[in-house]
Amino acid sequence: MSGRIIVNGFEMNCLAHMAHGLWAHPRDRRRGYTGLEYWIELAALLERGRLDALFIADVLGVYDTFRSSPDAAVAAGAQIPANDPALVVPAMAVGTTNLSFAVSVSTSYESPFGHARRFSTLDHLTQGRVGWNVVTSYLPNAAKNFGWERMVLHDERYDRADEYLDVCYQLWEASWEEDAVSVDGTTQRYADPAKVHPIDHRGDFFSVAGPHLCEPSPQRTPVIYQAGNSARGRKFAARHAECVFLSGVVPASLRRSADDVRTQASAAGRAPDDVKILTSLSVIVAEDETAVCRKREELQRWVNVDGMLAQYCGTTGFDLAAMSRSDVVTYRDTDHGQGGAALFTSDVQRPVTVGDIVDSMTQLGETTLLAIGTPVQVADQMEEWIDEIGLDGFNIIQFLTPETFTDFIDMVVPELQRRGRYQTEYTPGTFREKLFGPGRALLPDRHPGGLVRPPACVPSDQP
Amino acid sequence: MSGRIIVNGFEMNCLAHMAHGLWAHPRDRRRGYTGLEYWIELAALLERGRLDALFIADVLGVYDTFRSSPDAAVAAGAQIPANDPALVVPAMAVGTTNLSFAVSVSTSYESPFGHARRFSTLDHLTQGRVGWNVVTSYLPNAAKNFGWERMVLHDERYDRADEYLDVCYQLWEASWEEDAVSVDGTTQRYADPAKVHPIDHRGDFFSVAGPHLCEPSPQRTPVIYQAGNSARGRKFAARHAECVFLSGVVPASLRRSADDVRTQASAAGRAPDDVKILTSLSVIVAEDETAVCRKREELQRWVNVDGMLAQYCGTTGFDLAAMSRSDVVTYRDTDHGQGGAALFTSDVQRPVTVGDIVDSMTQLGETTLLAIGTPVQVADQMEEWIDEIGLDGFNIIQFLTPETFTDFIDMVVPELQRRGRYQTEYTPGTFREKLFGPGRALLPDRHPGGLVRPPACVPSDQP
Repeated sequence: MSGRIIVNGFEMNCLAHMAHGLWAHPRDRRRGYTGLEYWIELAALLERGRLDALFIADVLGVYDTFRSSPDAAVAAGAQIPANDPALVVPAMAVGTTNLSFAVSVSTSYESPFGHARRFSTLDHLTQGRVGWNVVTSYLPNAAKNFGWERMVLHDERYDRADEYLDVCYQLWEASWEEDAVSVDGTTQRYADPAKVHPIDHRGDFFSVAGPHLCEPSPQRTPVIYQAGNSARGRKFAARHAECVFLSGVVPASLRRSADDVRTQASAAGRAPDDVKILTSLSVIVAEDETAVCRKREELQRWVNVDGMLAQYCGTTGFDLAAMSRSDVVTYRDTDHGQGGAALFTSDVQRPVTVGDIVDSMTQLGETTLLAIGTPVQVADQMEEWIDEIGLDGFNIIQFLTPETFTDFIDMVVPELQRRGRYQTEYTPGTFREKLFGPGRALLPDRHPGGLVRPPACVPSDQP
Repeated sequence: MSGRIIVNGFEMNCLAHMAHGLWAHPRDRRRGYTGLEYWIELAALLERGRLDALFIADVLGVYDTFRSSPDAAVAAGAQIPANDPALVVPAMAVGTTNLSFAVSVSTSYESPFGHARRFSTLDHLTQGRVGWNVVTSYLPNAAKNFGWERMVLHDERYDRADEYLDVCYQLWEASWEEDAVSVDGTTQRYADPAKVHPIDHRGDFFSVAGPHLCEPSPQRTPVIYQAGNSARGRKFAARHAECVFLSGVVPASLRRSADDVRTQASAAGRAPDDVKILTSLSVIVAEDETAVCRKREELQRWVNVDGMLAQYCGTTGFDLAAMSRSDVVTYRDTDHGQGGAALFTSDVQRPVTVGDIVDSMTQLGETTLLAIGTPVQVADQMEEWIDEIGLDGFNIIQFLTPETFTDFIDMVVPELQRRGRYQTEYTPGTFREKLFGPGRALLPDRHPGGLVRPPACVPSDQP
């Protein structure tokens, strides 16, 4: 379907992801995040709604900048507790056949060899329905949890990430040739040793011998997601990412970032359709405007400002509690989704004060684009942003779990489907085929992961 | 039930685990190992048979000692391909309620912080049905896959493992106090920050700040399994392990190892019942002796000697292909299940030759205890070894998948149940409670993991 809007559910294996305080609402079901049922029901709901994927964020440390302490985050449950994001995928795969799963994993702390094996295993188990959201991690506490005295500098994190991906590509794409698994039951030969290769990688950050321990999975390389908001992040995304996840609330800024990623991707030899661009979206929808207002007001009452500030200060590195409302906050070019201090305010056109930011934290839905209204109004807003920013789709966050997704699926999806902007059935095949079309199970050969393949591995059915 | 025999299924997320070549048998279903169905059906089968757990082995490299090459292993599919062992657990947990899962993870290559979070997540998702088989890894290729120029020396691997477990205990047992999660929906407080602590660990091998990112799971620390066959391994097991998995085929040697572990555990302040001891077992069972012989002969024809030798040489470090049959092989005190060259032969009473070992590799079932016969005969053998060695139970390997387990469940389990030596129903609760009795969801306070708890965390219901 051309021009369709990609929609993912945006989640995290935790009590409170982005809408802090809402877990305490009587209708909210987030407190079940530790159990299988929560995830199985969530996946079934999203598949019923024909969402593309469940996108699962992650952190590897606690937010401890606000008031120089983790206390506000711990009290609010703001991304702590936070369980491992990959381990819920196999359980969700059991009850679904088409929903895909994009899982965030950092390149900064764990070994590419173990990571590559985990994602090959997921790709096998889901029959090719897995993506990897590449993150480089930004929390000082996370660095200390993995034995680093201080956080690795931003740009060096990306150099390391570049090499990390190169190692993964070699394991996924080059180690086992296309016909390496050539089963002969009579001679009991499973694979041809001449077609299974070590990678013998020796780089600046990693040494990895190989061969890869996994036989080729349906996609080999999972669909590469990346949230690149800084200049260095966009450069990385333009090279590697098949889906780029931009953050912000200002359409003009998002447009500039989207254009920049596409221009850089083109310069890197990639095709215009090779990169999908998404941003996060909040939705409040009801059948009529009175009900919309009532719903907004009801949800607004549950916003936990300390939780919001704990996350904001943790991700930006500003302790707003140590500043006064009139202090001007300088924009920083970091790559986390909420890294730029100005992102939650009107734009970088005027100085942003601490007061501006605190005020935005008290308001529901100020940290993402917010589509609010009747189903027709929400669909109108979504279409408008798609065109204005040049987006391919959205990651939808939840206020109430799973009511936000249920509302979207029951009210907005049918309206978008009537307009021909939303899939009514899934495209068969892997996650990559569902995004890019039949025959695209594997990375294109023009992608850096495609370039490392031995000639026999280049898929013959690519456009 | 007192005196009951613990029985686990012994598996690996791979094509060929220990009985090499048998995957090619027409009735074998191992080739489905990449898919969800394989694991879901396996778990349902074991739960129907009231087995305690599925024990999942692992490797992190290829066997490349035999003929100085990985080719024999790759051709035979001997533990390569080998997918990640933890990721199949959530899928198996979906369809089961009582079966537990013991997952092998090495302490040598990945971070204790990420590992501790993965196991807390598994313990939450399974509602406390998870164990961790602590391994230190022994393959030179695995070391090279994780950036180590050479394999860490055996005893230093255990020093590292000791510290690794200490870090995990601090995260699991000490970081979140018992009543740290004290939900107050009115104030939107999820946890009490005064009861969530950093661990600030700085040791010889690891620096980990904490706090743990996960709230306490049903068992906090998973049931600790360990396969300690060397003297250093047994010392480690005596301190940490709740289930010790010994390898060998000589009852008298197994007895000495079992006695040694129990003596050392007692010296370390642990109670006699705190350590269960298991060994691996092969089973060939049929209704009468004619059918038993026919089954053995049929299976024997499928043994792939190159696959067996690839694994044997890889785990011991001897390249038998470079030696002559009359060469004597010196016993080595290593800790892998098959580490001692003499383990597959009669004992260490006489010199073992290369020829002895090669011959044992050609015979089905020579690498473990083998119980063969009618259901009554198999049950007799099992009871005899339990008494003779002082065992608590067995890990059963498969020749044919899942036929070996089906045979055992349909024929041997009812016989053992008639004798009162096998559970007819599961004990309610967590894995630890199923093994050690009601009220033992957590580690005993005399265990090194129990000793790190703040006083409020000590369970009050312990014997």
